[in-house]
Amino acid sequence: MPQYKAPLRDVKFLMNEVFDYEGHYKQLSNGGEATPDMVDAILEGCATFCEEILSPINHSGDLEGCTFNDGVVTTPKGFKEAYAEYVAGGWQGLSHPTEYGGQGLPMSLNMMKSEMMGTANWSFTMYPGLSLGCMNTIMQYGDEKQKNTYLPKLVSGEWTGTMCLTEPQCGTDLGQIKTKADPAGDGTYKLNGTKIFISAGEHDMSENIIHIVLARLPDAPKGTRGISLFIVPKFLVNADTSVGTRNTVKAGSIEHKMGIRASATCVMNFDDAVGYLIGEPNKGLEAMFTFMNTARIGTAVQGIAHAELSYQGALPYAYERRSMRALSGKKDAEFTADALIHHGDVRRMLLTQKAVAEGGRSMIYHAAKLADNMVNGILENNQAKYEDYDNRLGFYTPILKGFLTEMGLEAANLGMQVFGGHGYIKEHGMEQIARDARISTLYEGTTGIQALDLLGRKTLLQTRGKCVFEFTSEMIDEVKGHLLDGGPMGTMARALFKRALQWKWSTLRIMLRANKDRDVVSTSCYDFMMYAGFVMMGHFWFKQAKVASQKLASGGKETKEFYTSKIQTAEFYFDRLLPRADGHYKGMMATSQSIMQINKDHFVMN
Amino acid sequence: MPQYKAPLRDVKFLMNEVFDYEGHYKQLSNGGEATPDMVDAILEGCATFCEEILSPINHSGDLEGCTFNDGVVTTPKGFKEAYAEYVAGGWQGLSHPTEYGGQGLPMSLNMMKSEMMGTANWSFTMYPGLSLGCMNTIMQYGDEKQKNTYLPKLVSGEWTGTMCLTEPQCGTDLGQIKTKADPAGDGTYKLNGTKIFISAGEHDMSENIIHIVLARLPDAPKGTRGISLFIVPKFLVNADTSVGTRNTVKAGSIEHKMGIRASATCVMNFDDAVGYLIGEPNKGLEAMFTFMNTARIGTAVQGIAHAELSYQGALPYAYERRSMRALSGKKDAEFTADALIHHGDVRRMLLTQKAVAEGGRSMIYHAAKLADNMVNGILENNQAKYEDYDNRLGFYTPILKGFLTEMGLEAANLGMQVFGGHGYIKEHGMEQIARDARISTLYEGTTGIQALDLLGRKTLLQTRGKCVFEFTSEMIDEVKGHLLDGGPMGTMARALFKRALQWKWSTLRIMLRANKDRDVVSTSCYDFMMYAGFVMMGHFWFKQAKVASQKLASGGKETKEFYTSKIQTAEFYFDRLLPRADGHYKGMMATSQSIMQINKDHFVMN
Repeated sequence: MPQYKAPLRDVKFLMNEVFDYEGHYKQLSNGGEATPDMVDAILEGCATFCEEILSPINHSGDLEGCTFNDGVVTTPKGFKEAYAEYVAGGWQGLSHPTEYGGQGLPMSLNMMKSEMMGTANWSFTMYPGLSLGCMNTIMQYGDEKQKNTYLPKLVSGEWTGTMCLTEPQCGTDLGQIKTKADPAGDGTYKLNGTKIFISAGEHDMSENIIHIVLARLPDAPKGTRGISLFIVPKFLVNADTSVGTRNTVKAGSIEHKMGIRASATCVMNFDDAVGYLIGEPNKGLEAMFTFMNTARIGTAVQGIAHAELSYQGALPYAYERRSMRALSGKKDAEFTADALIHHGDVRRMLLTQKAVAEGGRSMIYHAAKLADNMVNGILENNQAKYEDYDNRLGFYTPILKGFLTEMGLEAANLGMQVFGGHGYIKEHGMEQIARDARISTLYEGTTGIQALDLLGRKTLLQTRGKCVFEFTSEMIDEVKGHLLDGGPMGTMARALFKRALQWKWSTLRIMLRANKDRDVVSTSCYDFMMYAGFVMMGHFWFKQAKVASQKLASGGKETKEFYTSKIQTAEFYFDRLLPRADGHYKGMMATSQSIMQINKDHFVMN
Repeated sequence: MPQYKAPLRDVKFLMNEVFDYEGHYKQLSNGGEATPDMVDAILEGCATFCEEILSPINHSGDLEGCTFNDGVVTTPKGFKEAYAEYVAGGWQGLSHPTEYGGQGLPMSLNMMKSEMMGTANWSFTMYPGLSLGCMNTIMQYGDEKQKNTYLPKLVSGEWTGTMCLTEPQCGTDLGQIKTKADPAGDGTYKLNGTKIFISAGEHDMSENIIHIVLARLPDAPKGTRGISLFIVPKFLVNADTSVGTRNTVKAGSIEHKMGIRASATCVMNFDDAVGYLIGEPNKGLEAMFTFMNTARIGTAVQGIAHAELSYQGALPYAYERRSMRALSGKKDAEFTADALIHHGDVRRMLLTQKAVAEGGRSMIYHAAKLADNMVNGILENNQAKYEDYDNRLGFYTPILKGFLTEMGLEAANLGMQVFGGHGYIKEHGMEQIARDARISTLYEGTTGIQALDLLGRKTLLQTRGKCVFEFTSEMIDEVKGHLLDGGPMGTMARALFKRALQWKWSTLRIMLRANKDRDVVSTSCYDFMMYAGFVMMGHFWFKQAKVASQKLASGGKETKEFYTSKIQTAEFYFDRLLPRADGHYKGMMATSQSIMQINKDHFVMN
């Protein structure tokens, strides 16, 4: 069973050595409190909480799952107690304003916290994770009364929140939603409809649950321009913010899912439920976009979480389990067979997991800095700053969400593979990771939706390629001083230089082709996104290797092995994973013909 | 819920139009009965059995799973009855000798049967599937008395069989097995030990279970050269072949697995269990190799089975579910949104599933002809013929098992992906397919073991590259008349021609490198096998497209759409999937350094 150990050395390498988080926090309007000592204390406290409280109930939570009985959802043994400790530790309000009881720290620290918590126990982390969307919505669009009514207890974690978007007939295409909100005459609304796939929609861990619900006013225009946002609390809140009458929003059932079984996924029925309009009428879907990027990056974290946990499970097994002899001769002569770690193909699998987990983490840590600045734009009421950073983040978002969750799923499956047949057995805990990981490419926008967002929206419509051209320029700046280097740094620099030119040029080609054939956007987008992911991860592996080789060059023996391992993992990435960009390159450069020409009725003929 | 429909049109296309099975059966010593009418009747009868009996209990079998109670295993509702129908229909003995009550038909028909049965319900198909290994072993190595004692009821299906190989400490590396067999003094043996992962080890569907057990005699040499084979029946068999005393082989528990939950995977405890030596002492592992290729190809079938079923589940959903508008403009103007089938990225996923299922099926059907000839070598006591065909088959085996199961898992996951979030919910049946598929890359030799077998054993050790050179010559023969063709046939022919040269040349390079650095075999083998798979599937897609375009050219309108769809699927394969060979090409051509250099203790450092 994988026992989670927070990768603090790697976290500190990225924060202190690669991304200068100390300098970054100093220039943030809400970064003053995030001193290195404070950051260390938070990360170490969080690590302890994850290792000692969340990790031990990850596997048991999967086996037990949530149970549903007449509208009541019971979470697995230990979850309620763990959540109480989470609240007592003040973890929920880490990045939320002090005026509502939070600690007002930068959002990036919350992402780091989420990664640790999610790796230890993704199902658990869903509950407080869903509250974030609710809190952000109220903070951004609520009036003073709404903020004062809901935020203090959401920030403390005494209450949790949800986002009620999906309905049976639509998930991606929210323009189709039907839930209605009729004015009750007293300023409140009566909501009627059914929402599905509502994570944390009902559970036994908090006193109240505050739902943010997308619904239509009676006179609303059709489609996406007629959707408004409502606050619908499970229990109505009294004037003194104590919990009052039970509202008529009820869980009708919970879903039986492949994984994340300890996370309650609810069907929520609204029967004349009391709701409060939040934000402007009919602007609900636009409001959803404010924190879309950070929410999606929150899901991108799941890719590295499952890669990391599966790696932490597979590595000890590769040390212990013995099978056959290494091809280059006996390694453990005193035993009848060599440990798996000596076999090249097992190393390939482990290094793939390591490269995905650490490479993905560095991508997230970079994006988290942009998110901090975006939030500063909001805090400073500086719309231009908000938009600038939100746009920059918007380029990374679909790549991180789309690519990292696909790679995380692959890495989770490789961890099972290291175990051989034992990986398929529940008691080892490896197959749970693959099942939990499987949701990550589906929710918060499927891989296909991320791909369309990247190529269609971000690259073609919004920036006419500029987002790619800027990133490839950054890539070239990063490597240009190393093109003539010997050794791995030179090899990697030249590889990235070529990829930067290739990506830029191919984006231009696809843009030109899409002008004539709009189907190209949907037939090329998946390969374009995966290509982007492989190249971008290469860029961030290069950054890490560069810092590591500088550290090695400047002496300092104590962690020589750490830096060597970083460079060697980067070499592995460039040798074995980055080449997969070639297949995606050819895919994205193909015309739409081989996908679109087949008559829709000729897919199967009997 | 996917309702299985046997792809009979595709089956007949392959049998009659691509592979000339009629001619093939005519030249087999056991092919006389396999007339076209007989073959059609078998395929259609099997299709009905699969569609009406096996498919309806596939999902319920997963939900219910097997239950274990004090040594007794109960299969899910309907399994026992379905098995009784299977026996009554005479399906088990299809390819087994008439002298033991079978129908004596070629083995290929059994593979086609297994594909249909396995697609409809893989868990069910495991039970009779395991009997095959047992029957083949007794047929090949048993003495007359053993044959007469066990074969008639195994061939009829009244009894089932197992293969007891794996032990807790070893699966791949059978040299480590510890189960002991001590002579009892009366010509029988007392077996003691524990076997794990024994599929169909215990269940309630048959009167008796005949275990083939690998164990060590007291004086056996260490390692693989000291393993003997034993027959250990659940109930000892009386002289009149009626069932006698209960033997002391008992199921200790069943495994809780990620998938194939209706297949009982047992821990089998042997406590002085009565066993009968079969074959020569200490030659047990060699005997296992006789049917290794066909057993592994039986598992390769699982790749196409899950790709096919997931495709059959995803396609109707893509017709029904509506989301957004197609990028090239409204397609279903009368609805608020277009069906998924109009979206390029959804088509990409569906076509990938189709290309894997149909491309993989053609690879299996080709290999099945070799298997028929191999079996003829055995039936005719023609060792040279047996070896010739077994060697030929041996080249395909690891590619089919390794590549097709990896692609089948990917295809099963794509079917979930088409469903979006709904794919993750058990009731739709799509996630079951992905869970069931997950075992296929683990058992019967993991993907890594297949890869080592292909590159290390088959390519380097046994043939010094000849197996690849012969196959690439076949590829060139296939395409050489089409290199100057216009249209898709010319494009595909030229692509394959280049791949044939590239594969041949790169195999030479890897051989030279492996002479100096034996680790290269284990660091390159996975990419080599995947590369081989992509190229080989291209070859078989070309074959299908060639036949289809000949049929189109020769007129005959009634199935024009079928042939057009074949050619278009081949085009898709060449445009979007074959390019993935490029990434694997670079991986296999890399030195071992980036995988082997990292110190085994430096994978994680905290």
